[in-house]
Amino acid sequence: MNSERYQRGQATLSSIHGHVGEGVMKQLADIAPDFARMIIEFPYGDIYSRGVLSAKERQIATIASLATLGHAPTELKAHIQGGLNVGCTRQEIVEILMQMAVYAGFPAALNGLMVAKDLFAELDQKPPSD
Amino acid sequence: MNSERYQRGQATLSSIHGHVGEGVMKQLADIAPDFARMIIEFPYGDIYSRGVLSAKERQIATIASLATLGHAPTELKAHIQGGLNVGCTRQEIVEILMQMAVYAGFPAALNGLMVAKDLFAELDQKPPSD
Amino acid sequence: MNSERYQRGQATLSSIHGHVGEGVMKQLADIAPDFARMIIEFPYGDIYSRGVLSAKERQIATIASLATLGHAPTELKAHIQGGLNVGCTRQEIVEILMQMAVYAGFPAALNGLMVAKDLFAELDQKPPSD
Amino acid sequence: MNSERYQRGQATLSSIHGHVGEGVMKQLADIAPDFARMIIEFPYGDIYSRGVLSAKERQIATIASLATLGHAPTELKAHIQGGLNVGCTRQEIVEILMQMAVYAGFPAALNGLMVAKDLFAELDQKPPSD
Amino acid sequence: MNSERYQRGQATLSSIHGHVGEGVMKQLADIAPDFARMIIEFPYGDIYSRGVLSAKERQIATIASLATLGHAPTELKAHIQGGLNVGCTRQEIVEILMQMAVYAGFPAALNGLMVAKDLFAELDQKPPSD
Amino acid sequence: MNSERYQRGQATLSSIHGHVGEGVMKQLADIAPDFARMIIEFPYGDIYSRGVLSAKERQIATIASLATLGHAPTELKAHIQGGLNVGCTRQEIVEILMQMAVYAGFPAALNGLMVAKDLFAELDQKPPSD
Repeated sequence: MNSERYQRGQATLSSIHGHVGEGVMKQLADIAPDFARMIIEFPYGDIYSRGVLSAKERQIATIASLATLGHAPTELKAHIQGGLNVGCTRQEIVEILMQMAVYAGFPAALNGLMVAKDLFAELDQKPPSD
Repeated sequence: MNSERYQRGQATLSSIHGHVGEGVMKQLADIAPDFARMIIEFPYGDIYSRGVLSAKERQIATIASLATLGHAPTELKAHIQGGLNVGCTRQEIVEILMQMAVYAGFPAALNGLMVAKDLFAELDQKPPSD
Repeated sequence: MNSERYQRGQATLSSIHGHVGEGVMKQLADIAPDFARMIIEFPYGDIYSRGVLSAKERQIATIASLATLGHAPTELKAHIQGGLNVGCTRQEIVEILMQMAVYAGFPAALNGLMVAKDLFAELDQKPPSD
Repeated sequence: MNSERYQRGQATLSSIHGHVGEGVMKQLADIAPDFARMIIEFPYGDIYSRGVLSAKERQIATIASLATLGHAPTELKAHIQGGLNVGCTRQEIVEILMQMAVYAGFPAALNGLMVAKDLFAELDQKPPSD
Repeated sequence: MNSERYQRGQATLSSIHGHVGEGVMKQLADIAPDFARMIIEFPYGDIYSRGVLSAKERQIATIASLATLGHAPTELKAHIQGGLNVGCTRQEIVEILMQMAVYAGFPAALNGLMVAKDLFAELDQKPPSD
Repeated sequence: MNSERYQRGQATLSSIHGHVGEGVMKQLADIAPDFARMIIEFPYGDIYSRGVLSAKERQIATIASLATLGHAPTELKAHIQGGLNVGCTRQEIVEILMQMAVYAGFPAALNGLMVAKDLFAELDQKPPSD
């Protein structure tokens, strides 16, 4: 847990997801703690920390991929929030999801937009201190 | 064929794919000419022409989606070329594809990288006037 | 909104889905109104309005596709209802979904049948005036 | 091999695919002969023989499903041929595949159309006695 | 219902799923009773009864496949329970699901682990006589 | 390249794939050398080296996953060979692939069997010293 990869991954994870990412790690703690560690080390420590692409460009790619998969709405929601956190506007998120109609079909795009709509509504109901 | 959507789509298609996009349209000419027209009108005339996202950001989303699908290497190759045409570097393309290992699995990422490798090799063999 | 494509799409949408299609459009109104318009214009105005296939044959293809995707139960339910509206019997819907076991696997077929079962139960509980 | 299911499946397979279906069975003969038998018994003996849907309606569903999957061009080609054999016109096949752009994305539809184009070209080159 | 395949399938189904498998059959009874019968006859009567692989090895393959599909959490849960019933440990189930991150992506693996977590929690709350 | 994860991954990779795995690494050397390293470190160094499941059980899960994906025949072929290397018989490989008809559909199973058939034929043509 003190490896350089883990430390770097933890920092990158926090820069994208804030404290929300900790929830997934806690859910995994009793069933697959090594997988929680690997999520921090590989996607965040190895991949997202590489530079070359900006944090915003990486979230665009991830949102496109998750909307295309279609079966991961929880992860899509987390990465739409991550996209907002690193500088995407809501309008940009909507455009990425609309564009997925071309490649993954209208249902995948529509379901992605419904995930974004849910998140945006939650954000509008939260007090600003959140 | 003279509609505003078609004209706008044709211009956007050319700005991304150059003359290469015409090849697909010719292949469709005898079997599904209306589909060739729709490709120009909907993805290019309606979606890619909307602004909000830059041309480069839209190619990042498309490359991520096509690599995730896994079953469309021809389209992936065309959009990697399109990405290069609108300002992505080869290194950025490689990063998008590597990132897909996280969401779509290592085989999808690896196969996407092999598509990019083939395209880069073709580009390196072409005379500069191309 | 007054384009020929939109008018034609709206008419085709109503002929398949009745007033139910309006619900999706309203859900999109605040987040992606252009996407709501595009759903009417492209799938319904451009594709479903082309003739060649009967309305029933087009719903058979759509139900098969959505059951195969597996990640779009809401859209599948809407198109099973659409299939009933344009002349498919419940028994025919069930046969399409059973056949999907061959191509998309038993879980995709089973989940599609559960969607149909839910819809049929809802229809049986509604008063006839609906 | 003499079971009622096998006999019925063999007859249904022949009515859809003619002698072409035998090729697949021969390819499986040395590696998985039981799977060749099961293909005849389950999809053809149990599913396609059930009636309720016409042979043409069943091919529409299958073509839609295979185009949606995207990873089975050989099977798609066989079932486009099967569709023609049981009464679909080429124009109807093209319409089914175009419609898949809505649900499975434009690349899946485009690749399906390329499969159909290849088959139609082969058919046009064959002497009429075939 | 008295065919040899059905009898063999029923016995195999019970050996993997206990009485739980009956629930699915009852759900299908009013909408697609033939499909309920086919589930017993083909997957359980024809495939799972073939030997060559152990019951445990077959559940490993099924859990890997269902986690990869991503859109069938109900079936995945049933087969994780089935895996436990035929000798997989919880730790082994977790390892199969973690390994799916490599091939189907981290979201598919994570969602599979959440399904396992739910099941394990349910099992821990049940009295031992269940 | 000298990290413990890399060393462990390299040893595990060799124990499954022999020298064949080196080919993929060489193909990646000029385009994405870091991805080549990550393939050794994460799937082989982190996942396959964990124990709990036997090497054979892990190949069963991988073959099932890759056959289900349908779009990665090259990786499927490599892991069928890997399965043979760690103790699966050809007959067991065939059974895993047949079983995938239930979950991923008959085309995915059939295409997987064709990949196995190709590999088995290649192996039979090689002199024994290979």
